[in-house]
Amino acid sequence: MNTIGKNLRLTTFGESHGTAIGGIIDGFPAQFPLDLDAVQALLDARRPGVSCLTTPRNEADKVEFLSGISAEGLTLGTSIGFIIRNLNHHSSDYYHLRDVFRPNHADYTYTAKYGIRDHRGGGRASARETANWCVAGAMALQLLEAKGICVSSRLIAVGEQTDPALFEREIENARNRHDSVGGLVECTISGIPAGLGSPVFDKLDAALAHAMLTVNGVKGFELGDGFEAARKLGSQELDTPKSLLDGRLICEANHSGGIQGGISNGMPIVFRVPFKPTPTIGQEVQTINSSGEKVLIEAGGRHDPCIALRGVHVVKALAAFVIADFLIAPDSRYESMV
Amino acid sequence: MNTIGKNLRLTTFGESHGTAIGGIIDGFPAQFPLDLDAVQALLDARRPGVSCLTTPRNEADKVEFLSGISAEGLTLGTSIGFIIRNLNHHSSDYYHLRDVFRPNHADYTYTAKYGIRDHRGGGRASARETANWCVAGAMALQLLEAKGICVSSRLIAVGEQTDPALFEREIENARNRHDSVGGLVECTISGIPAGLGSPVFDKLDAALAHAMLTVNGVKGFELGDGFEAARKLGSQELDTPKSLLDGRLICEANHSGGIQGGISNGMPIVFRVPFKPTPTIGQEVQTINSSGEKVLIEAGGRHDPCIALRGVHVVKALAAFVIADFLIAPDSRYESMV
Amino acid sequence: MNTIGKNLRLTTFGESHGTAIGGIIDGFPAQFPLDLDAVQALLDARRPGVSCLTTPRNEADKVEFLSGISAEGLTLGTSIGFIIRNLNHHSSDYYHLRDVFRPNHADYTYTAKYGIRDHRGGGRASARETANWCVAGAMALQLLEAKGICVSSRLIAVGEQTDPALFEREIENARNRHDSVGGLVECTISGIPAGLGSPVFDKLDAALAHAMLTVNGVKGFELGDGFEAARKLGSQELDTPKSLLDGRLICEANHSGGIQGGISNGMPIVFRVPFKPTPTIGQEVQTINSSGEKVLIEAGGRHDPCIALRGVHVVKALAAFVIADFLIAPDSRYESMV
Amino acid sequence: MNTIGKNLRLTTFGESHGTAIGGIIDGFPAQFPLDLDAVQALLDARRPGVSCLTTPRNEADKVEFLSGISAEGLTLGTSIGFIIRNLNHHSSDYYHLRDVFRPNHADYTYTAKYGIRDHRGGGRASARETANWCVAGAMALQLLEAKGICVSSRLIAVGEQTDPALFEREIENARNRHDSVGGLVECTISGIPAGLGSPVFDKLDAALAHAMLTVNGVKGFELGDGFEAARKLGSQELDTPKSLLDGRLICEANHSGGIQGGISNGMPIVFRVPFKPTPTIGQEVQTINSSGEKVLIEAGGRHDPCIALRGVHVVKALAAFVIADFLIAPDSRYESMV
Repeated sequence: MNTIGKNLRLTTFGESHGTAIGGIIDGFPAQFPLDLDAVQALLDARRPGVSCLTTPRNEADKVEFLSGISAEGLTLGTSIGFIIRNLNHHSSDYYHLRDVFRPNHADYTYTAKYGIRDHRGGGRASARETANWCVAGAMALQLLEAKGICVSSRLIAVGEQTDPALFEREIENARNRHDSVGGLVECTISGIPAGLGSPVFDKLDAALAHAMLTVNGVKGFELGDGFEAARKLGSQELDTPKSLLDGRLICEANHSGGIQGGISNGMPIVFRVPFKPTPTIGQEVQTINSSGEKVLIEAGGRHDPCIALRGVHVVKALAAFVIADFLIAPDSRYESMV
Repeated sequence: MNTIGKNLRLTTFGESHGTAIGGIIDGFPAQFPLDLDAVQALLDARRPGVSCLTTPRNEADKVEFLSGISAEGLTLGTSIGFIIRNLNHHSSDYYHLRDVFRPNHADYTYTAKYGIRDHRGGGRASARETANWCVAGAMALQLLEAKGICVSSRLIAVGEQTDPALFEREIENARNRHDSVGGLVECTISGIPAGLGSPVFDKLDAALAHAMLTVNGVKGFELGDGFEAARKLGSQELDTPKSLLDGRLICEANHSGGIQGGISNGMPIVFRVPFKPTPTIGQEVQTINSSGEKVLIEAGGRHDPCIALRGVHVVKALAAFVIADFLIAPDSRYESMV
Repeated sequence: MNTIGKNLRLTTFGESHGTAIGGIIDGFPAQFPLDLDAVQALLDARRPGVSCLTTPRNEADKVEFLSGISAEGLTLGTSIGFIIRNLNHHSSDYYHLRDVFRPNHADYTYTAKYGIRDHRGGGRASARETANWCVAGAMALQLLEAKGICVSSRLIAVGEQTDPALFEREIENARNRHDSVGGLVECTISGIPAGLGSPVFDKLDAALAHAMLTVNGVKGFELGDGFEAARKLGSQELDTPKSLLDGRLICEANHSGGIQGGISNGMPIVFRVPFKPTPTIGQEVQTINSSGEKVLIEAGGRHDPCIALRGVHVVKALAAFVIADFLIAPDSRYESMV
Repeated sequence: MNTIGKNLRLTTFGESHGTAIGGIIDGFPAQFPLDLDAVQALLDARRPGVSCLTTPRNEADKVEFLSGISAEGLTLGTSIGFIIRNLNHHSSDYYHLRDVFRPNHADYTYTAKYGIRDHRGGGRASARETANWCVAGAMALQLLEAKGICVSSRLIAVGEQTDPALFEREIENARNRHDSVGGLVECTISGIPAGLGSPVFDKLDAALAHAMLTVNGVKGFELGDGFEAARKLGSQELDTPKSLLDGRLICEANHSGGIQGGISNGMPIVFRVPFKPTPTIGQEVQTINSSGEKVLIEAGGRHDPCIALRGVHVVKALAAFVIADFLIAPDSRYESMV
């Protein structure tokens, strides 16, 4: 439903055009000195309007923590509640679309499931939800950093373009044509200990894939060589082990992407996720309404021409959350049990 | 850990070279007339030795049901226990590898996690585990079929080869070179109702991705246009809705792959998964042992040159299980509550 | 951790003396017409200061819903976030106790677990948390009522006193002696269909017992004849079935308390829970501080002399929530599957 | 459904008169040296026929482990599958009852839930299931013992009789009158560290109550002073803390039963559970059949006149399992994170 994680858990709520969105973080270890400014900074980075290439909706996302943190900024071990007020509802922007199923949106699927939907924007399907994930992810990032684990993510393609110097132009082009464009994000997690993940249904890569496919607009996931591995011979994919270092397996190559049998081996975890182009484009498009009649619609509101741009931050935040969840998992060996 | 599913659940056990493997299926609806022969048939199809291209290990996998089914073959609603005996242990095949970390295997990661591993074969990381999944998947397939849902899967590439007529030759070539080769599997689920899946962390595509990444040798997942969508413009990805039919959204195209906002829209669900080449190849390869010393090893035992071949059945079984899990989920609307 | 329920879930946060408490309700069916005034009314009933016998702290608990409900008051099927502001912190009342483990409180156990605790009041262990449960319970009660299920609870003993006419005097006596007194609450759930609950670890009575033992101050649970049944002969405990009515088993007696084999039989569910006396009393008591030194403390703040009085509402709310969770569970039969 | 536990999990299957019962234990720490004879010994102790007072059905329960344990008896960290064959079906004993709802049994409730039931004995509702729990519990007991935690349980009343010397006579009397009798079991867990359990819905006492109410025939649970606490004044219930010893709170009394705010304080955990008299008695009793017609039945088979006698072992096993589950839980503090 609206919860992710086993040992570290995030439960969220919030429609894009309601009073507020928010969440509850459960299982965060006690006595951790949180840097609340860094949490806000990740929220700000992900915010539309930050770059000239993202939507100019001015959402001054301000996270308000309500529990679980002492006056000195130490976590108490108890559940951490937070909210982010929605300042800028503009629900009238969407009123003319209340009875229409926008193409490639969740309008129809929510209606099919619930028989009712919040027609003011995307409801729970809105990318606004990812602000919640950034709060939880920013906290997870601090925990990982304290353990020497670094999570980074970057855009490696926009449409057909793979030269970062030209990404901005590619996005501008799409916007100028009243169109949108897809993008590819790569995430690298280094400094990770060996032994995270479990057989057979709690594999670390399976958890990452699950998390990534919950991100709005993401259509896939690949680890290490990913789809390319399907085209290769076994002899081409060997990550020949060379040595052990601090409990990590040092290999000549990293075709596996840092995970074998669902468990980290200590090499960097590398995965990629494709973002589809924003489904809302500035052109008149055809669709149907709830009576099944064909209608032409033109999207009101303003939308990012390339959601992958903000997706970079969301991927990083959510990946950090997943890793932290596994890092907190009970120890697997009798000798190290409390 | 070793459980998958929420409403329909499968919990499994079994090392590849122990006495038996098996599982418990929980939440299967009562009074369903199971075709136990069809369950065995899927197990047989997945079995090595069936095709000349798969490993000749003669595992006569015979599922033995222990509970949850009446004498007449009707499910009782209670948990269904089953075992599959391991007839052909050959554990001595692996004895010389007991202290060695085979490249691209889970040998090191299990050791890192547990400080101990079953050196007789792959332990829990062995593809033998997928026999358990085929039992559960075969039952799920029957449930789906009774609801008009059809799951099919097929190999669409072997290495660089995409012409099915030439797959056999490609695999033979790999075997003859004492090598292995990757492959790409596509799965299609048709007849699916709209409304399966939930916001925001129980998305149907996220659950499918999770399940697929638990399959041995799978390195990725993509839905609909998948990674290709990242290269496209929004105007190229529109699945223009045309009409409603029996609660399903009929679209001109299916770039989305049947799921929008994590919820099925009624169009066929289409996804692909890449299988890496079998990591065990018939050549001498370099690696290290548990003392960190470099060693040369040659794999004993016999292994499929292309695991994607058997993966076709596993993907189908596991996809069916995931869909059945969501089909059984509680109804989302007040009006249809019991 | 901080989540209860499987199909209907409540996740909560909030220290007694923080900014706000609140929660997220997940899985509530869509399109249900909520009576928000009735939710507030249950909160008001549970509130201290309502009766002259409860603590005079003036908490004007006002629930603020943030998501999941349409402007018309219909549930959207999505997660429902809510907060209740803490108006009246008075944290200085507790400052002198920050380093002391009050007897029979959770002060020491939280410190042992987390190495840190919110010394301003009871933190997460405070009965203030039960306000969150009343919000969720009030919503569950409406759902049950719409299905013809009635949950009622009442105080059946205060200390040794079992005559309701004398409860008020018993509590006054305790207060006047600067003491507190225990109480016994009975809950009856009628109109319940047969078939709620599951073998073997999701028994309905086990879920009720679990929920009740989470209530602050509750020290036990008994169903039907409960502890008395241990003193009886089998021939004295027979609930002889007489007929079937609307799928319910009509029995001559109800020693079982409406549940057999963990599943409701359609007879009223009857259970009782004992509340211990409020551990904070208006007398000087001895204890130790975090250095292990003996200290004498006198509780500041004002406290209910009999927590069972407010417990009546909490028991009702939480029982309703548990029943609703099971009512929403997936159907167990193939024939009625969606 | 059929799973208990979070970090240590047991999933079970098996009808009383099927081929076998069994289970899967997940999350048991690796490298623990299991004493398999001690597991069998607990199974033997719980077995009917061991005492002259229990049913003479000769079930030679022999547990067969199928996975998760090395040849040397060390746990591998992977899931541990086991089965116990049913040697002595006698299903014809029950054939005449196939259409009848025995009073105080789960016959009707299973039928109401599933529309079908295994009429050969009690199906999943049979106390035979508790043999599975004893396997898992015996393993948990070994883990606890290695950590210095001791779980003991004993019968403290049979019917009205509280003198242990006279329990045997009380049970004989019941049997001779073709009747059965209830009993009260007390369980004590000593050597337990402070800090087990979590706010607010994972309280240790709530988990114990849940587990106990899943035991066949148990009608209640009370911790420490339990129901008696409801009759007391606050000043009578004070567990005045005296000192700290090895992280445990040493109190003058233990009215709380070792748990405060849902978290262990280090004092012994003491709880009691009442067992109802065996519902099957050797007398002709009245009931109805599935058509709602009144019928007289006389139970075939042989049954314990006092299920509490075997319940002593089941309570101990299940309590140990719950404690082990919490002992394995992730550490709650940042400083002790892996």
